[in-house]
Amino acid sequence: MLVFKSADPDYFISHVDVNKIKEYRDEAAKLVGEASIGLLFRHLSASRLVSIAQIEGRTRGAGSEFVLACDMRFAARESAIFGQPEAGTGVSPGAGGIQHLARLMGRARALEVLLSSQDYDAELAERYGWINRALPAKELGNFVRALAHRIANFPAAGVVTVKDRVNAIALAPVGDFRRDSDLFGEGSRNPEAQKRFQAALKRGFQTRAAEMDLGRMLGDLSNRT
Amino acid sequence: MLVFKSADPDYFISHVDVNKIKEYRDEAAKLVGEASIGLLFRHLSASRLVSIAQIEGRTRGAGSEFVLACDMRFAARESAIFGQPEAGTGVSPGAGGIQHLARLMGRARALEVLLSSQDYDAELAERYGWINRALPAKELGNFVRALAHRIANFPAAGVVTVKDRVNAIALAPVGDFRRDSDLFGEGSRNPEAQKRFQAALKRGFQTRAAEMDLGRMLGDLSNRT
Amino acid sequence: MLVFKSADPDYFISHVDVNKIKEYRDEAAKLVGEASIGLLFRHLSASRLVSIAQIEGRTRGAGSEFVLACDMRFAARESAIFGQPEAGTGVSPGAGGIQHLARLMGRARALEVLLSSQDYDAELAERYGWINRALPAKELGNFVRALAHRIANFPAAGVVTVKDRVNAIALAPVGDFRRDSDLFGEGSRNPEAQKRFQAALKRGFQTRAAEMDLGRMLGDLSNRT
Repeated sequence: MLVFKSADPDYFISHVDVNKIKEYRDEAAKLVGEASIGLLFRHLSASRLVSIAQIEGRTRGAGSEFVLACDMRFAARESAIFGQPEAGTGVSPGAGGIQHLARLMGRARALEVLLSSQDYDAELAERYGWINRALPAKELGNFVRALAHRIANFPAAGVVTVKDRVNAIALAPVGDFRRDSDLFGEGSRNPEAQKRFQAALKRGFQTRAAEMDLGRMLGDLSNRT
Repeated sequence: MLVFKSADPDYFISHVDVNKIKEYRDEAAKLVGEASIGLLFRHLSASRLVSIAQIEGRTRGAGSEFVLACDMRFAARESAIFGQPEAGTGVSPGAGGIQHLARLMGRARALEVLLSSQDYDAELAERYGWINRALPAKELGNFVRALAHRIANFPAAGVVTVKDRVNAIALAPVGDFRRDSDLFGEGSRNPEAQKRFQAALKRGFQTRAAEMDLGRMLGDLSNRT
Repeated sequence: MLVFKSADPDYFISHVDVNKIKEYRDEAAKLVGEASIGLLFRHLSASRLVSIAQIEGRTRGAGSEFVLACDMRFAARESAIFGQPEAGTGVSPGAGGIQHLARLMGRARALEVLLSSQDYDAELAERYGWINRALPAKELGNFVRALAHRIANFPAAGVVTVKDRVNAIALAPVGDFRRDSDLFGEGSRNPEAQKRFQAALKRGFQTRAAEMDLGRMLGDLSNRT
């Protein structure tokens, strides 16, 4: 049983550092034999271990893709923010976000979320199926702890069978994760994406302050390049 | 970037004229090489262009299937009405409605919507996933305009890749659209469907006034034939 | 047209009697040629007949799987309770629950529901897509009756075609139901599951009183075995 939570109330996990994409991919290659963060995350989804993300603050890009790889996601209603900002910088999500979101929320909402590169609060993320539920921040920790202990105390055989059978239906095949990963790699070398990365960096992209409101910044950016 | 909206506050797009099914199919054949409105609409879904339906008033039958072919759907909470009235006249939706609704809302809600031939307001359409979101009518235009401009200003490469990858997961294959189209064509020549069309026409079917409340009319009709 | 409802306001259908699993499977074998309740239920889903479950009170385990096999599910907001308690006793749902829930609510919510073995009220079951809608108990009967009469009065040809086409998309293949059924059979013979069954029986499992709050009982149980 794994529970992931953040010590920083404003940030859960950020997107990848666009200056370190090669390093991330090299690290993934060491761990799973392929230069793909999506395939690395998919090991978590396919694992016998049950994982829960307890989300406060922002989680975007590969951060969102990490929580999507978890088995369940519960978020603080007041503070959690979700986003896939890739399209806003000229690329496509490469670590499984497309695979999970299209299956969780259907074609139209997945296209909205992925193409808008907008920030989504916990209440809307819940309505769209991005997360299991939005809960009041003060109840979130106890809720997740109780659920994790409950499942951890059930016999392993049934839990593992349930997870296997649900994955057989709802977890995308390895090849689709690999393809998205390759398309992200190719996209990030595109001159137009490189130009957007640079323009974004000039406006504070990848700094804590500027990413408090990243959704808005990406919209402004696109009007000026 | 395409945004579709209606100049008539009560009607977005109606169902097909049941007296002109052959004409519609012939027109589709000229455009896409097959006598299928569903395959025509599917070109919109598969296109590189991003499409948004901004819906006020009624959209039923092939009108609903047109908005389902769009990439996103936002509707006026106060006025938008959705329906697939085909079963109520003895036929099955032929222009993609079954393919989209079963994937967007799951088996039980799709069966309810498709078999009831009932009118659904924007709030329930949102809960069922028929539309992305219901918004207050006075905010709808600005919301859609801002979203369309935002996406239009992002680099095309990422947008096109995202759309391709989501379609690979969530857009039904050509063969399934073709099959539904053929079943609609066959169904509309069934004597029982022809009888229902005639009974409905006597009660004002395909007139503006009678279709303000089409869901109710179809229910009354079935009790008297 | 079939409408299923309960004469008991507290119980719709219970889970299977864990002391009679072999008898249930033998009965299913007589009816459908295979020792699988899931394949028996699947005949209802695949049937030309349209089925609606009108749910008041508790429906868990195979009871929940029975309503999931119905075409539509409407539940009393005040009283309906849903649960798949199998993991809590060391087994996995064997009568189609995994197949339906993973498709209706997506990977994360299906894993939550299936692994938590918790009780879900009608409001949350609606948000998760387990049921079509939660309605006030005093409106439920009239709503279901009107919907059933409405659909029954539509020509059969269109209704049957719609159901066939939706099933082609959203009803899991026979082989997946059979596999879940076999895994449940194997799991129930596992010594750890047998121990949990016995521990649960000592605490009133399978008695009316103890199952008023089965979700809580399963949680307590797991802490003491």
